[in-house]
Amino acid sequence: MTTKHFDDETNPVVSTQDVHAAAVSAEQVGREEQVTREVLASFALAGNPRHRVVMQSLVKHLHAFIRDVRLSEDEWNTGIEFLTAAGKITSETRQEFILLSDVLGASMQTICVNNEAYGDETEATVFGPFFVADAPHIDNGGDIAQGAHGQPAWVEGTVRDSEGQPLRGARIEVWECDEDGYYDVQYDDDRTQGRAYFFTDEKGEYGFWGVTPVPYPIPSDGPVGDLLKAAGRSPMRASHLHFMVSFPGTRTLVTHIFVAGDRYLEQDSVFGVKESLIKKFELNAAEVPNPTGRQLDHDWARARFDIVLALATEK
Amino acid sequence: MTTKHFDDETNPVVSTQDVHAAAVSAEQVGREEQVTREVLASFALAGNPRHRVVMQSLVKHLHAFIRDVRLSEDEWNTGIEFLTAAGKITSETRQEFILLSDVLGASMQTICVNNEAYGDETEATVFGPFFVADAPHIDNGGDIAQGAHGQPAWVEGTVRDSEGQPLRGARIEVWECDEDGYYDVQYDDDRTQGRAYFFTDEKGEYGFWGVTPVPYPIPSDGPVGDLLKAAGRSPMRASHLHFMVSFPGTRTLVTHIFVAGDRYLEQDSVFGVKESLIKKFELNAAEVPNPTGRQLDHDWARARFDIVLALATEK
Repeated sequence: MTTKHFDDETNPVVSTQDVHAAAVSAEQVGREEQVTREVLASFALAGNPRHRVVMQSLVKHLHAFIRDVRLSEDEWNTGIEFLTAAGKITSETRQEFILLSDVLGASMQTICVNNEAYGDETEATVFGPFFVADAPHIDNGGDIAQGAHGQPAWVEGTVRDSEGQPLRGARIEVWECDEDGYYDVQYDDDRTQGRAYFFTDEKGEYGFWGVTPVPYPIPSDGPVGDLLKAAGRSPMRASHLHFMVSFPGTRTLVTHIFVAGDRYLEQDSVFGVKESLIKKFELNAAEVPNPTGRQLDHDWARARFDIVLALATEK
Repeated sequence: MTTKHFDDETNPVVSTQDVHAAAVSAEQVGREEQVTREVLASFALAGNPRHRVVMQSLVKHLHAFIRDVRLSEDEWNTGIEFLTAAGKITSETRQEFILLSDVLGASMQTICVNNEAYGDETEATVFGPFFVADAPHIDNGGDIAQGAHGQPAWVEGTVRDSEGQPLRGARIEVWECDEDGYYDVQYDDDRTQGRAYFFTDEKGEYGFWGVTPVPYPIPSDGPVGDLLKAAGRSPMRASHLHFMVSFPGTRTLVTHIFVAGDRYLEQDSVFGVKESLIKKFELNAAEVPNPTGRQLDHDWARARFDIVLALATEK
C-alpha cells in the first residue's frame, strides 16, 4: 500500500485529484462545488475590485486544495495548530510566516511574478530578512567586510541597461554573512560589518572586497523547522552575497550571487538559486597580485558579476 | 477602468488566469513553472507519503494563486501582516485562524469532504467553537434552556439510519445561544444553559424544549473582521441550533438546524446553511396546548427535525 504512493516519485507534478475523483459521487461533487460557489459569491461585491479578484482566486485554490487531497478533519486541525504555533513564535525579531512563505517557495514565486523576464536582464531573487536601511557608503573598490571574518573575496563587474549602455553612478548595495554564517545584525553588539553601498564609475564598472560567502541555516527551531524535518529537507541556504542595484529609469534589481560548487545549490531552503546567478569564486594564493594591491596573508577569491538592469519603461 | 472589473459580477467563478496569460512571455512562464517544480521536488522524499501528497497539492495551488492574480509584493506583504495580526490576537479564548478558515469557507468545505453524501442521510455543517464536553444529561422531552432567556421552542423528530430503521437510544446533544446571541460559556459566571444531551425512545423519537435561535456575529474586532468589512460582508451567523447525533455503527452527525425566514440565511458568515437544514419554527400563542403540557405565558415555537444517520460501513 505505502509503496504505491511512491510510484510517481520521479514526477512530483502529479494531480491528486484524479486519484480520488472516481470515489466521489456526482451528488457529492455538486455539494462541494456549491460550497465554493457560495464563498466566491460572498466576495463579489467587494468595494475594491482588486480585493475581489485576489480573494476569489485564493478561495478557488484553497477549496481545490481541500477537495484534491480530501483533507481530513485531523489534517485541518494540524493546519490550524501550525498557524497558531507560527503566530506564537513570531515576534519583533522572528517572522515565522515569512519563513513559511520562503520554504513553500511562495516568496520566490512572488519575486518571479514581479520581475518578469525582459531580454537578458539579470534575474532577481529573494530579498531576505538581513537588509539594513542605513548601511555605510564606501568608495568603489573599497572593503565592505569592515572586520567581518572570512576569506577575502574581490567581486567586480559592469552594470549596463538592457540596451547595452554602461551605467555610470549606478547604486550598488551589497550585504553578506561572515565565515560563521552570521550577519552583523545577528550579533548582540552594534557592529556594522559585511554591508555597504557604492557607485559605479564612468564606465559602469565596480569592484569591492568582501568575504567569500558560506552556507547558513534559516531558523529551524519553530513549526517551519518541523515542516522541513517532516519533508526530509535541509534548512540550509546556499552560500550567497546579496545585491540591490538601482539606477534612474531602470527597474531596481534585488538579487544574490551564489558560489559555484557550493553543496547546497541544489537544495537551497528558500529556492533562491538561479543558474544565471551562480558565479565562480576563483581561488588565488596570497602572493598573487590583486586588483587593489592589498596586502594579504590569506588565499583570496575573485568573482565577476556583470549586471543588466531592465529599463523601467519596458516593465 | 474600474467598472470593467465588474463585467462578470454575476458570475464570480471566473478564471483570473486568462486575464493575464496573454501578457506573460513564454520565457517568463517557464521561469515561474520552474520555481513550482523545484518546490514540488523538495517534498518528493517526505518520509510520510501523505505528507508529500498534502504539501505538494498545497504548493501547487498556492503558486497557481500567486501566478493567477500576479500577486504584487505589496499584496504579499499585506498577507504576511494579516497572518501576523491573526497570530497576535489568537489566545486561549480567541482563535482567529479558525475564524479565517470559517469565513473563507475552508471549514465548511472540509466538513463537506469528510461527510460524503450518502443516500438521504442528513447533511453535516460546521462544529463551531461553543461545544462543551460535559453538558448535562436530561430526559427526552426535557428543557435544555435551564434558564437561558428566549422564546420557548419545542423541537422534535425521529432518528433513523439510512436503511430507514428507527434508532432507539441514539444520543442527541444540542447547544444554542440565548436571545441575546450569547452561549453560556461567553458569560463570566459559570452558568450552564442552552446545552444538554438525551436519548431517543424505543421508536427513535425525541423532543426537547429550548429557545428559538437568534442571529449573532462572529468576533469581528480582529483582522478577520477587517477582511469581512473590505468584502462588504456581514459577520452575522444565521440563527441556528447545534446538533451532534451518534449511534453505534453509524457515522456521527454534527449539524445545525436553521430558522426558516431568518434574514441571514443567504449570507451566513461561515457558509454553514444547507437548504435541507432550514426548518420552520411555527409560532403558537401561549394558550395553544403544547406537547408536554408546560405552563407558558409566552408565545412558543415548534419545529420538526427528522434525522437520518449514514451507516458507518457505507463510509
